[in-house]
Amino acid sequence: MVNYKLLTPGPLTTTRTVKEEMLTDHCTWDEDYKKITRSICSQLLELAHVSDDEYAAVLMQGSGTFGVESVISSVVPEDGHLAVLINGAYGRRIAQIAKYHKINTEAIEIPYDRYPTAEDAEKVITECGITHLAIVHCETTTGILNDIKSIGEVCKKHNVTFIVDAMSSFGAVDIPAAEYGIDFMISSANKCIQGVPGFSFIIARKSKLMECKGRARSLSLDLYDQWETMSKDGKWRFTSPTHVVLAFLKALDELKAEGGILGRNKRYTDNHDMLVEKMNEMGFKAYIRPEIQSPIITTFEYPEHIKFDFDDMYTFIKERGYAIYPGKLDGMNTFRIGNIGEIYLDDIEKLCGIIKEYVNTKLS
Amino acid sequence: MVNYKLLTPGPLTTTRTVKEEMLTDHCTWDEDYKKITRSICSQLLELAHVSDDEYAAVLMQGSGTFGVESVISSVVPEDGHLAVLINGAYGRRIAQIAKYHKINTEAIEIPYDRYPTAEDAEKVITECGITHLAIVHCETTTGILNDIKSIGEVCKKHNVTFIVDAMSSFGAVDIPAAEYGIDFMISSANKCIQGVPGFSFIIARKSKLMECKGRARSLSLDLYDQWETMSKDGKWRFTSPTHVVLAFLKALDELKAEGGILGRNKRYTDNHDMLVEKMNEMGFKAYIRPEIQSPIITTFEYPEHIKFDFDDMYTFIKERGYAIYPGKLDGMNTFRIGNIGEIYLDDIEKLCGIIKEYVNTKLS
Repeated sequence: MVNYKLLTPGPLTTTRTVKEEMLTDHCTWDEDYKKITRSICSQLLELAHVSDDEYAAVLMQGSGTFGVESVISSVVPEDGHLAVLINGAYGRRIAQIAKYHKINTEAIEIPYDRYPTAEDAEKVITECGITHLAIVHCETTTGILNDIKSIGEVCKKHNVTFIVDAMSSFGAVDIPAAEYGIDFMISSANKCIQGVPGFSFIIARKSKLMECKGRARSLSLDLYDQWETMSKDGKWRFTSPTHVVLAFLKALDELKAEGGILGRNKRYTDNHDMLVEKMNEMGFKAYIRPEIQSPIITTFEYPEHIKFDFDDMYTFIKERGYAIYPGKLDGMNTFRIGNIGEIYLDDIEKLCGIIKEYVNTKLS
Repeated sequence: MVNYKLLTPGPLTTTRTVKEEMLTDHCTWDEDYKKITRSICSQLLELAHVSDDEYAAVLMQGSGTFGVESVISSVVPEDGHLAVLINGAYGRRIAQIAKYHKINTEAIEIPYDRYPTAEDAEKVITECGITHLAIVHCETTTGILNDIKSIGEVCKKHNVTFIVDAMSSFGAVDIPAAEYGIDFMISSANKCIQGVPGFSFIIARKSKLMECKGRARSLSLDLYDQWETMSKDGKWRFTSPTHVVLAFLKALDELKAEGGILGRNKRYTDNHDMLVEKMNEMGFKAYIRPEIQSPIITTFEYPEHIKFDFDDMYTFIKERGYAIYPGKLDGMNTFRIGNIGEIYLDDIEKLCGIIKEYVNTKLS
């Protein structure tokens, strides 16, 4: 039996009540189940502050990457020209997806501790004749929060389709999709809405989605087809992860009960603030500067001048009830701690106590 | 709260103990979890009667269709020529996948109440210069069981890569993969192993798999890459449906406890035999003749000379504890009843009692 909480950016710690929804085997083809899917889709639109006149929510089997690939490979036409603004591994992954599909792509790399600016977007759009621009909102690689609002304005001005990977932010950072000019936004069941992993979802501008008929490069990941079937009455085209879907519906209820995105954002922000303060006191420096740091996940550099073994600290912490996360930066030694999931200040306090114990006994 | 059992071909009824495994949030990147994935892969190879010298098991996020697409789009090269022997909707789906990927394909359609023969395979292979041949083992469309052994021999003789969609049969119908000359076989977590939906798996001949490097047309569905990462130490490339994976490990235990494939086959066969006998007594005729009928799922024709409303009967049965399945045949009115999942003779007896009550009160 596992007896630790996850301080990782998804799968994360969910409530007992969310998990208990999975104690039921549900059939997939009848009205009861379709109603659940419809309810999820309509709640997702609400969270994105959009109406179902203008936008649609589409659920897609698989991990978040499957959702991102579904968008990239279903939306950009043969003669499209994609720009990806990259400041982390997930931005890179979008460019990698585009490469698989032989999509003409400009991969604009920016140092990972900075974010792409409106000027960066303006430059690539005007210089390269870009038709589609993609960016990650919260780069889980570092925890940086990108400025999608400014980028969205530039896309709108140039009539460029704007694609946002909001995997680890949606549900905890408010994203008014229409106001930000977002055409396609992707997130996943096991992030800030606090469901369990098994599907991703896409919030799509209907007028743009309707242009994608027959454009997809994969059957399973055909976003238009998935929407076309699902929008009729809530039916998934292929077998859906029923238990995960039931858990997600419950997770949406619990998000509402916490005060929606605002309430959840506050809890995560409090977690993050306490974490950084206490980690600083112990000599662990956050990699991203505070002004552009998300409340989602925090990257810490290995302490200097000390022989530091992350795996050893990881095991020490896990044995005491928490699983943290390794770093993902090339050429730099870091680790990460997630602030999301069913995690409270009490957990952060306990975790920092454990780390303090580790530092005092093993690092001094 | 849902209080009915599923007589559907997956998602199906699972045990309480399998579902209870989902009450844990598990982290994904450390040794504990990788060990679970490795154990699942090695048990799947055992079930297919193959050694890990010659074969590999690869788990893939998404539904069964995602697994099939992963194989078709990762295995058939640009200059390959695929034949699909089709006697149902799932065979058609393979051809549809191939079309998405612009794979040169011969779609050989056979009447749905017959199975493709060795001669059919021989003919298309020799006449068209086929390099890859795909067939569904149990066509869930009707419940027919195709003769993959004979087809496999023909493929072997002509050095054609043999792909078997064993979605609804693997785990309940014995398939010695090497003996049958199978190069790639696909099945899913929520079928006869009695797990819950969320991933599919592929049993692949290593020598053929290794030829697939750089061949895949999708990042998410790149079979070679998924294997390359997973085979190192059990790590999934992208977020895995952890809860579903934990449930599947338990389901494998329970399959073993039931006497493996042989034991499970017996229970399903008993279910099927009783079902057909009792349904016949009530005037419902099975669509597939007994010699080629699987123990997985049975298609029944609507009764003749009677005004029959499937939805009405479905609701009547569901209110009394069981969910059955609509038909999937064009131009012919049928419905289906699954014999798989945590279903016993007692359930079949109860179900047939309910149907009898329906027939007596509503159809006479």
